[in-house]
Order: sequence, then C-alpha cells, then structure tokens
Amino acid sequence: MTPEDFTQVVSQCTHFLNDHYPRTVRQRLETIIESPHSELRRDAYGKGGFVNVLESEIAELMGKEAAVYMPSGTMAQQIALRIWSDRAQNKSVAFHPLCHLQIHEHMAYQELHHLEAVLLGEPDRLFTSEDLATVNHPLAALLIELPQREIGGSLPTWQELEAITQLAKSKGTKLHLDGARLWECGPYYERSYKEIVADFDSVYVSFYKVLSGLPGAALAGPADFIEEARIWMRRHGGNLHMASPGAVSAKLGLETYLPRIPLYVTKASEVAAILNRFSGVRVVPEQPKTNMMHVRFEASAEKVMDAVGQIAAREKCLLFGWARPENDGSRVELWIGDAGLDIPQERLESLFSELIRSLT
Amino acid sequence: MTPEDFTQVVSQCTHFLNDHYPRTVRQRLETIIESPHSELRRDAYGKGGFVNVLESEIAELMGKEAAVYMPSGTMAQQIALRIWSDRAQNKSVAFHPLCHLQIHEHMAYQELHHLEAVLLGEPDRLFTSEDLATVNHPLAALLIELPQREIGGSLPTWQELEAITQLAKSKGTKLHLDGARLWECGPYYERSYKEIVADFDSVYVSFYKVLSGLPGAALAGPADFIEEARIWMRRHGGNLHMASPGAVSAKLGLETYLPRIPLYVTKASEVAAILNRFSGVRVVPEQPKTNMMHVRFEASAEKVMDAVGQIAAREKCLLFGWARPENDGSRVELWIGDAGLDIPQERLESLFSELIRSLT
Repeated sequence: MTPEDFTQVVSQCTHFLNDHYPRTVRQRLETIIESPHSELRRDAYGKGGFVNVLESEIAELMGKEAAVYMPSGTMAQQIALRIWSDRAQNKSVAFHPLCHLQIHEHMAYQELHHLEAVLLGEPDRLFTSEDLATVNHPLAALLIELPQREIGGSLPTWQELEAITQLAKSKGTKLHLDGARLWECGPYYERSYKEIVADFDSVYVSFYKVLSGLPGAALAGPADFIEEARIWMRRHGGNLHMASPGAVSAKLGLETYLPRIPLYVTKASEVAAILNRFSGVRVVPEQPKTNMMHVRFEASAEKVMDAVGQIAAREKCLLFGWARPENDGSRVELWIGDAGLDIPQERLESLFSELIRSLT
Repeated sequence: MTPEDFTQVVSQCTHFLNDHYPRTVRQRLETIIESPHSELRRDAYGKGGFVNVLESEIAELMGKEAAVYMPSGTMAQQIALRIWSDRAQNKSVAFHPLCHLQIHEHMAYQELHHLEAVLLGEPDRLFTSEDLATVNHPLAALLIELPQREIGGSLPTWQELEAITQLAKSKGTKLHLDGARLWECGPYYERSYKEIVADFDSVYVSFYKVLSGLPGAALAGPADFIEEARIWMRRHGGNLHMASPGAVSAKLGLETYLPRIPLYVTKASEVAAILNRFSGVRVVPEQPKTNMMHVRFEASAEKVMDAVGQIAAREKCLLFGWARPENDGSRVELWIGDAGLDIPQERLESLFSELIRSLT
C-alpha cells in the first residue's frame, strides 16, 4: 500500500484505536471560539488576558509559586536546565538516554546552551537510584520523565521515584520533571498532581497531547525561576505577540480530557491484555502504567503497516498510524483517548487476531 | 487618568487612528475558520497541510529558493545570523544600534549564539555605506532593517541602499534583511518585493503586524540555508506540533491587507502634514516613508496620554495608545491601518489641535 493509498484509507475510517478522533483545523478553532474563555480579552506578548489566568491555574495545580505558558516543551526544558546550570555554575545535567533532549532536539542543549549531559541507565529500561549513585561528580540538575515515553510510558514505583529524588536532593541536585505526559500518571500513583511533583524544583507539562490543545506548554517553579524563564523564553523567540488562543485551548483540554484519563488508562490495560495473548507481539511495558504502550512486532514495519492498512480499508477502523523499524522487527506507539474508548473489546480481539494472522 | 480608566475609555472608542480596528480572540479565529484555506488538512510539525503552501508562496514572492514558517522574527533572525556566522567561521555580525536584536531580545544573539555585534551608525539616524566602510575586519553578515522601526520607519534611498549592499557584497559579507515591516516599503521604492530583496541572501518577514495574522514569521533564502534553519528552529523550540492556523492567518493577511498598503502610506503622509504644522511636535521622519511614523512631543508622556485619554473619552476616538518618556519629552509610535483610513482629515485636524492646546 502506497503512502497515498494509506492516507486515503485513513480518511475513510470512522474508528481509531489510537489518539482522540481526528479533527480538522477548523474544528479545533471552533471549539476555542465556542468556549466562554475566548470572550476574555487578548494578551499582549503573554501579558494580560487569558494567558495569565491559565498560568495561575497551572501553578496552583502543580503546587508551585508560578508558571509561564510557552510555545513548546523543547523550549521549556532547555530553559529550565539552563537556569539551574547557571545558578549552580555547573554545566553538568543528567537524564535518560532516550530523553527528548537527547534524541529529538538536534542536541540543542549543547548547541544553544553548552550543557553537558550524563546519560543515566540503559535505553530499554528506566534509570534507577543505583544508576544515579554511580555519578561521582556534582550535577546541576536531574531530569526525570514521568512517564518515560520512549519505553512505552514506563513509570518507576513511588518508592523508587522517592529513592531517586531523595538521593538527588542529598547531593544538592535540582530536580526537573519532564511532564510531557504527566497528566497520564495520576491513576498509577493514586496521588494528586501536586503530590506527584512535590519533590521537583521545576515542572514542564504539555497541552497538545492527551489534552488535545493547540501547541503549547507550561513551566512551573519558584517565582524567581519563572521570571528568569520568561527572559529566556524571549531569547528563544518564544514570547509571542498573542498566546491567548493556545491558552484557551489548554484550559479546554484540562476541562474536557483530564477527567477522562482514568477511563483511557483502564482501556489501555484491556488492550494490552488482548495483545499479550499473541506470540510475535510484545507490549512495553507488559502491563501499561498509563494510557500508553509500545507494541513490538517481530514482523517488519512495512508488513505491519500493510496489514493495518488492509484491515482499515475493510473495517473502517484504524489500529494505529505508523510503525518504525527496530532491530529485526518493528515498534508501534499506541495511546488511548476518546476514540479508543468507543471500540468494544470483542471487536479489538477480532481485529488484532486478523492482524496477527496476516503477519504470520 | 489611571490605567484602568484609560482601558475603560478605550473600550468605548469607535474610531482609532493607530493600527487596524481592535479584534477579539474570537473574531480573529472566526476569520480563519471562515476562510477556504482552513478546509485544507492540518500539518504535523510544519509538514504538510497549509504551512508548506504558504512557505512556497513566500519563497516565490521574495524570489528565493525556499522559505520556512516560524513562530517569531526573534527566532528567525538569530537563526539566520547564526547560520551565516557558522559558514563564515566568523562570529562578527553588524547591525544598527536600535536593531531588534540589540534592544528587544535580552541579548540572545550573545547568550544563545555567542555572536559579536558591530553597531553601525548612530541611534537617531540610518547607518550609511560610509559607516560600513569604517569597519576594518571581516563581517559574517550585515543585517539591514527596512524600514527602520525605531526611527519611525525611516528608509534609505534606493541609491544609498545599493551603495550599502554592494559594499557588503564586495567584502564577502552576507546580507540579511530584517523585513518585519517590509510590506510597508513597496510604495516608497516603487518596486516589487522581489526586486527590493534581490540583493539579500536571507529575508525575514512578519505576519502579525500590518498583515494582522496570528503570531508568525517566515525566513526565506537558499534551499540549503532553509534546511539548516529548520534544524535551528527545532533547537529553539519553534518546530510546533501544528502551525496551520497561523499559516492560514498569514495567507489571509496577504490577501486582505497587502493590497491596501498604498492607501495606508498615503494617509500616513496626510497625518504627518497635519502634525508638522504644530510647534512642540516633531514627526520622525519628517516626511513618512511608509505607513508609520514616530511623533516627538515636548510634553511628558503622562501629560500626552492624559490628554489623549480625555479626548478619547469625549470623542470616542483614540489617537494612539501609549507614549514613552524620551529626554525631556515623549515619543509615540503611529501606524496607519484600516481604522485610520476612516477618520477624515478635518476631524484629525480638530482632534490634534485640541491635543496640542491641552499640552501647552
């Protein structure tokens, strides 16, 4: 199936296991226009209007003194690490080998901020307090990603998380949370977001993934840290002339999708239970901790996507949109949102049976 | 008049000399939704959808091989200078002392990119080819801002511009155009945009000022330069998950406002003619070159804005929204858009007479 044929097939689908239902640009903007928040006056370069309302709400939700709305997490996290590094007069920071900063940002932390990274642990597992203990020089900051996207949304136990954060604190290392998908952690930890992030000095959260907003992020932390972050945001070119539409969409995401996350997490667990029955398939992590999982197929990405395309063409149901080659097989990322909830288990069992059959 | 009272007065105004008519967030998004362009499918991180359509159109309009849509000019211009600097293996760049990079970006060109700037000429006048000739070391790039915003939208004559660009070329210096307000230059130079920017190696244009779009900019130049700029945009945190709404608004701006710029420029000239009649007032430049001007008052900013507020309260017409203190007096920035066109000359004469009377 050519990419054009695949796109054509997807456009005919009515059901989607991955993500929320697709929305056009027009539909996304209509949601914002129809919301009461868009009555509020606009901001000017992030000052006034709805942007500051959202920032206060995020600060409150995270239990931090202040927050700043930013265009992206790429910007927010470099800025957080740079500030902690400058304050410690130490360019050394630490994170997982598959951290967003290491694999998705063209090494901006080096190229723009001249930071040096210690990569903790191994790519296919979470790092541990033992890994941290092996670092024998001072670190300005430690970045922890909860959940760890590149290993299927894995999460450390609460005890292990506390062991890591306490060790970092004992060494005077600042803790920064990569909370790109923090919203999805609530059910696993059975704690409020404020409790989950309490040990972190700074926290980044995202608004366009499960919350389905326009591109946008927030960085929360101490008031003086956030003031400094605003200066760095301007330096990065992220202090935009008007941020209200994104801020309104973020607020709508918090209202609409955040309360449904427990439903998504339950469904993800049920989907994994089906997948775990097949041979030639491995779910990562085996028991999902959030609404996300990765799925390892022994078959090639091309073969998997061809089969997914055939099923989608016949059943008008898209299981997932892409697979990437990995070792001898392929890897798929799957996260449950509104759309996945609408596919009954029996149908999923039959669709996945069909998929696996066509791969063997 | 307190700031709150002033805001209240402005909210009651029906006429505005400066800018286009104010629009709420909702009204801005409605314009995008109602446009046929928002039918097009969305982009994913700037790929596909309407973003690439806009990029091609800008490249064509500027006569360059390629263009990239970016969140802001702050980002675009640092990136342009960084690339030229890296290629020349020379950290030295040159621009005017009141360049945006020097006064509005918290010295990001130093803090993020470690560039070193030669400031050409004096703050209150354009730099000349003679100023450039005094630089006796190689420059990686020269940034020219057309028109120069901080001196009221001043423009060099075509001959002087050519003298500068030819001298730079003869020294092997790359030419970057700060075209934040390039759209406004067409009538003065009586040339197409393609001709105006022909000597420049890279060009930045903005979409949210006279074009009234959502925040957004474009950088145009050689294809390999733009490919590199995309990598730097990602490093800056500017490769956003979805850029289509901004790109659609930019296209609408090109369709709606670009053809009206000659009207705005003519009106600006008429407004300046009125202002030039009063003593205690100086228009910069004395004869506006674009739809913009600065106005110097001998009275303090507070006194000027108080008088403007009183007039706005009585007449429902806002002359301008802010003045900043400067030396013994104050400075105001004024640019003509749709709203200013609707105020007849006789009314402006009477409003400005009243303003000047109340200042003396």
